[in-house]
Amino acid sequence: MTTAATGLKVHCHLLPQPVDSDVAVVIDVLRMTTTAAVLFDRGLRELLVVAEVDHARRLAVEHDALLLGERGGVPLEGFSGGNSPREYLDHDLREASAILCTSNGSRAVEAASGASHLLLASIRNAGASARAALSASDGRIDIVCSGTGNRPSLDDVVGAGIVIHELLDLAPDADLDDAARLALLTAAPAGEASRLLRSAQHARTLERLGFAGDIELALERNATNMVPVRRGLEPAIFVGEKGGGR
Amino acid sequence: MTTAATGLKVHCHLLPQPVDSDVAVVIDVLRMTTTAAVLFDRGLRELLVVAEVDHARRLAVEHDALLLGERGGVPLEGFSGGNSPREYLDHDLREASAILCTSNGSRAVEAASGASHLLLASIRNAGASARAALSASDGRIDIVCSGTGNRPSLDDVVGAGIVIHELLDLAPDADLDDAARLALLTAAPAGEASRLLRSAQHARTLERLGFAGDIELALERNATNMVPVRRGLEPAIFVGEKGGGR
Repeated sequence: MTTAATGLKVHCHLLPQPVDSDVAVVIDVLRMTTTAAVLFDRGLRELLVVAEVDHARRLAVEHDALLLGERGGVPLEGFSGGNSPREYLDHDLREASAILCTSNGSRAVEAASGASHLLLASIRNAGASARAALSASDGRIDIVCSGTGNRPSLDDVVGAGIVIHELLDLAPDADLDDAARLALLTAAPAGEASRLLRSAQHARTLERLGFAGDIELALERNATNMVPVRRGLEPAIFVGEKGGGR
Repeated sequence: MTTAATGLKVHCHLLPQPVDSDVAVVIDVLRMTTTAAVLFDRGLRELLVVAEVDHARRLAVEHDALLLGERGGVPLEGFSGGNSPREYLDHDLREASAILCTSNGSRAVEAASGASHLLLASIRNAGASARAALSASDGRIDIVCSGTGNRPSLDDVVGAGIVIHELLDLAPDADLDDAARLALLTAAPAGEASRLLRSAQHARTLERLGFAGDIELALERNATNMVPVRRGLEPAIFVGEKGGGR
């Protein structure tokens, strides 16, 4: 892909907000969108993202799908795995469907559901997500951070900053709104982004719960080209697509 | 003031949100809180901050007060001045009362009204505001940015970052939440803060409307020790207090 004058507008939302643009890029670095990228890397066929545990259980039966998720770092009864991306690094998930039950990430997916194209971005697939978002876009991209509860999460803002940094490589003249400019501050230099992400409240919580490895995995920039993109609307079903060449 | 272990928690809100903490620091760099600092520097006795034009007109009669404000950069009929801090630099306002009619700043004051102490901070009085906030605090300070409409404003985030930077000079062990860490990124080095503020959407709008001088005035860090602090609750009445020695 060559760089060109695009007239692209990039809006960033530090918390889930309704968007009705062409392309919404949902970010939940710790951990939903990072885990989603790993699942598709392991061959997953489709992923359903839902907020409620009971809803997740019902969908798992309907779709004959793996049931993944946890609440507050605690595994859920009847679930085959949690939210930790590291759990799935060595799994063979070819042809499998999975339900991922996650509160903050699902809320962001729901808020962004008005967009024509919806994709899940993380630091692991930042470059591929930027390429996929730009090629789907008609002139505007909305980046929607999941946050934690009703508070912005520094890990998501760092993820947004890195995706915006990748977008600017492709569309250097892109017009950024104030929140996008703010997010971009976290992206350079790279060492600073890692330090910031490790200092995020949610990162410190995960570390206390024994998930320090998830943070390192989440920080592996452009480890994959796999981008989860929404196929079905209700429920939100994602499939993995290669986000352009590296 | 000497630095000491304070156990201070600093929360930052990039948009107005209800707070019920000890101390709320409201920030509307372009231009409400900057203008307020200038008005008290010129001798103003009390300032009422309100959102609605008709409400402002009624209060001006009740309080025999100057009526200041504008909508979208356009002066209002019957008002003696606008929102531009530069208008008041040479005015003698000793013993005067004023009503300042402003939409975004008023919304932030309203949102933060549950705090025991409420003060108006800007880059012009950042150091004095930090000292005043810390000495009023029982352990937590909430910084509330006004934003523009429902979007975070980079100018306010830069102001918040500079106030947080000043707070860390006084309380180096303060515990910052994610939004406060993000705001702090904008504060250092100083040249970067100026560039960022000038790039803010609202700064560019003001420049187009002929108010470029307001931006330069808003950027004068620690130009004054004057801190507008709330005295009355309903309506929000502010008086000027010296925020500690320099």
